[in-house]
Amino acid sequence: MRLDVVTIFPEYLEPLNVSLVGKARARGQLDVRVHDLRDWTYDRHNTVDDTPYGGGPGMVMKTEPWGAALDDALADGYEHGAHGPVLVVPTPSGRPFTQELAVELSERPWLVFTPARYEGIDRRVVDEYATRMPVYEVSIGDYVLAGGEAAVLVITEAVARLLPGVLGNAESHRDDSFAPGAMASLLEGPVYTKPPEWRDRGIPEVLLSGHHGKIARWRRDEALRRTTANRPDLIERCDPAVFDKKDREMLSILGWRPGPDGRFGRNPEAVEE
Amino acid sequence: MRLDVVTIFPEYLEPLNVSLVGKARARGQLDVRVHDLRDWTYDRHNTVDDTPYGGGPGMVMKTEPWGAALDDALADGYEHGAHGPVLVVPTPSGRPFTQELAVELSERPWLVFTPARYEGIDRRVVDEYATRMPVYEVSIGDYVLAGGEAAVLVITEAVARLLPGVLGNAESHRDDSFAPGAMASLLEGPVYTKPPEWRDRGIPEVLLSGHHGKIARWRRDEALRRTTANRPDLIERCDPAVFDKKDREMLSILGWRPGPDGRFGRNPEAVEE
Repeated sequence: MRLDVVTIFPEYLEPLNVSLVGKARARGQLDVRVHDLRDWTYDRHNTVDDTPYGGGPGMVMKTEPWGAALDDALADGYEHGAHGPVLVVPTPSGRPFTQELAVELSERPWLVFTPARYEGIDRRVVDEYATRMPVYEVSIGDYVLAGGEAAVLVITEAVARLLPGVLGNAESHRDDSFAPGAMASLLEGPVYTKPPEWRDRGIPEVLLSGHHGKIARWRRDEALRRTTANRPDLIERCDPAVFDKKDREMLSILGWRPGPDGRFGRNPEAVEE
Repeated sequence: MRLDVVTIFPEYLEPLNVSLVGKARARGQLDVRVHDLRDWTYDRHNTVDDTPYGGGPGMVMKTEPWGAALDDALADGYEHGAHGPVLVVPTPSGRPFTQELAVELSERPWLVFTPARYEGIDRRVVDEYATRMPVYEVSIGDYVLAGGEAAVLVITEAVARLLPGVLGNAESHRDDSFAPGAMASLLEGPVYTKPPEWRDRGIPEVLLSGHHGKIARWRRDEALRRTTANRPDLIERCDPAVFDKKDREMLSILGWRPGPDGRFGRNPEAVEE
């Protein structure tokens, strides 16, 4: 997979040399190119921004440096045999970046990132490249960053760990929160390792029982407990078919009831099916 | 504000030397300490993880190094006059990190981050420190990362830019997506700057009109357009009182109607109030 990043803060992308992404680069699984947007400015002050049309606070990133930088990055990629680029534009105005989208992007051969600063990039840049390749305008969450670089690190990491052979033995997709499967839409509960006692704190006895069925049930109950506490929205959205009899008992203990459509809600007035 | 980060990948936190956070550090507004968790391991292999109790894939981070590292980081902070620490634990099982939470954290004098790898940290570590300080277990979004370090960069940046005097003139809180105020819960629409024509692409004429009312209306319409397209959930959650007559016209054009409770939905069958 080839990754291009155009930014005015290339140093911010240093983490792409570290850990999982760094190792995937060293193994040749990822070809990462970070470009300094200011290399495509031709005035004395290396200007990348200007005041917004229509007035208002803040500055807008100019079309010309972005157009020139993207043209060159794309030309270089094609020259090196890359194909099928997609433009990934981190912006708080984008659609949510989700695990599903991470999977989708991990299947593409070439991602080109345009992390912006200030009030964002002149709209015509996205409009222009949208005529040549798919564009993903994505938001990593409902908060405001100083720029898109941190989002690029997040997206890159979420995507890279899905590439075949990138995750080592110490890590695993299987029980991931948000992974497809039985635990779909449930958060993972607590985990423990040796020693069995630390600062007068023990571990739940069931984990020492060796009884796989009971352990699986305990984990599922803890997942339900955590999810109802931290992400009631995930339970509410859940197809109730994923909840077995024991799940329903646990949900009931936690104060959740199925509504008329079968979906669970925390409303204590909800009608039992 | 003091920030401590305990991690097995201190290099990943290099971006804290860059841009806005780096400048705030240079000005003395932020006192950032990054600690290598492995400095608190005492075996030949610097072991920080072990197999999970109860079996299953992946590894769990051990209590002892975390306990020792956090004790020392806290002791050092107190010695240097810091007070009121809170523990910030990035985890996909946490509650969502939002702009509201960024504001809350920006009001605290001291944040201690524990980015984990593998399947997470032995639960007893959070249980232990929760007896001494507030603990925020937060998730930056519905995707899986290789570790919590990218989340620390995201949270730190979202928090740091809210500190008094950190944002420069080129940037602004006022019209931020997710900022409180008239644009609350609406995404920002497109922005433009000079030149007026680029690669045969012009800019919307209204932005050259000098008519502030029309420009504000156009921006609001574009924000509605963007939000209905990318984040219908934000419109659905919106208190309908925030929509004026012109907003309602635009929403109607976009195929949205108020339901019986007044809230807007995309359902074309919804009854007009």
